[in-house]
Amino acid sequence: MKVLVTGGVRSGKSRHAESLVGSLVGTAPVTYVAPGPVPKDDDPDWAARVAAHRERRPASWSTLETRDLAGALVGADRPLLVDCLGTWVTGLLDEEQAWERSSDDVVALVEARLAAVVAALRDCPHDVVLVTNEVGLGVVPAHRSGRLFRDLLGLANQRVAEACDEVHLVVAGRVLRL
Amino acid sequence: MKVLVTGGVRSGKSRHAESLVGSLVGTAPVTYVAPGPVPKDDDPDWAARVAAHRERRPASWSTLETRDLAGALVGADRPLLVDCLGTWVTGLLDEEQAWERSSDDVVALVEARLAAVVAALRDCPHDVVLVTNEVGLGVVPAHRSGRLFRDLLGLANQRVAEACDEVHLVVAGRVLRL
Amino acid sequence: MKVLVTGGVRSGKSRHAESLVGSLVGTAPVTYVAPGPVPKDDDPDWAARVAAHRERRPASWSTLETRDLAGALVGADRPLLVDCLGTWVTGLLDEEQAWERSSDDVVALVEARLAAVVAALRDCPHDVVLVTNEVGLGVVPAHRSGRLFRDLLGLANQRVAEACDEVHLVVAGRVLRL
Repeated sequence: MKVLVTGGVRSGKSRHAESLVGSLVGTAPVTYVAPGPVPKDDDPDWAARVAAHRERRPASWSTLETRDLAGALVGADRPLLVDCLGTWVTGLLDEEQAWERSSDDVVALVEARLAAVVAALRDCPHDVVLVTNEVGLGVVPAHRSGRLFRDLLGLANQRVAEACDEVHLVVAGRVLRL
Repeated sequence: MKVLVTGGVRSGKSRHAESLVGSLVGTAPVTYVAPGPVPKDDDPDWAARVAAHRERRPASWSTLETRDLAGALVGADRPLLVDCLGTWVTGLLDEEQAWERSSDDVVALVEARLAAVVAALRDCPHDVVLVTNEVGLGVVPAHRSGRLFRDLLGLANQRVAEACDEVHLVVAGRVLRL
Repeated sequence: MKVLVTGGVRSGKSRHAESLVGSLVGTAPVTYVAPGPVPKDDDPDWAARVAAHRERRPASWSTLETRDLAGALVGADRPLLVDCLGTWVTGLLDEEQAWERSSDDVVALVEARLAAVVAALRDCPHDVVLVTNEVGLGVVPAHRSGRLFRDLLGLANQRVAEACDEVHLVVAGRVLRL
């Protein structure tokens, strides 16, 4: 079973995803994959949120911090919870210095990485729950970086959703199966 | 019956909430609770919108302008329509000069106020319909105030939703029961 | 059959709308209505997106570029796909120099144009699928133009939705019938 969990910030996405993994695998061990950049020391809000998420997770879960999301899926030997695609895209753009490059270049790069992720996701024999963000429902962002990120994450969400059995939208803690 | 009505701006949330209250209570009197800051004189758009909302409401409804939302719920002697949690959070942040304080402090403050609101909501023997906004579905806001508000309203929506029987998402005037 | 297709950017709205038109009309000819301003030469991202959309459409479809959306509906001699209301509102605001005028004036103008569009839509004997954007689910935009656009498009979505048989919300390529 592959499920993409999406929603806005502070909608209860991560909590739902954790509960969903629990209902899929019971008490079996799970690998929690954090595919984004390591939180910066100067962002105490983010660090606090990461710590709060960690405390909620069962002690039997292991954590894998890696930006190689396709590799994590290929190498999986147990169910995975990936949280989240938004930080994965952010890390990828930073790593590739995408902000300096043309949009076509960056889209081609992200499409290539997504193709590898989607292939690995389809082949993965374990349950996988992926968390992402909806960021495309506001007005056009003022900066190119915001517009680019928004487009690329929308693309990632569409591609990954195609490879999933279910997509869950979380609003105010309530879950809608799309 | 307790219902949280959420959606984007100009989605038809307030109109749906008013119609919902009418279907719950018929022609019985209702208290309309405006829990936000009083509209500023220099914001004609907001004043016009408030006036348009007021004209739509039945003459038998009374209006209570108060930032003490928990108190309004405790003291209710008839059904309530609360419009909206977004202005309540805004008023609370202004009142407590939250923009000058650490995020941890502000989150703790809002959590405490929310706990009182949620307890009062659960205990209220009357129908209550609360309107809120979804603001977490765009890219990360450029300013800390925007990020903080977004996080706190997301938190408020989750907490209040837990105490409600139903959550309705309004999109383009259409209602989705979550 | 009249359907409004809404969702965020890069959610798969246009693709769904095209597929929906195909399922409604089969291989019969369709007029694709582009009601927005002509893409600027200095926006290669937009031009590329327009080209990608065009390539996806069947060769039997004709294209009508016009800001007179009501006229396009009145004059329709076959099914229409309108993509999208967001560019229609943008073009209208530019054309009428709305950014210089009072909000009341602009709302009245848009209401009048919308009334004509809605009347034409109700009278149109052909299938019509209209694409729009949800832009009201982020924090308050920093600039008046963003706030005004957001309010007006929300209004347009509500009005057009009232004249449609169905409203479809597209999230990560999945379709929710509202």
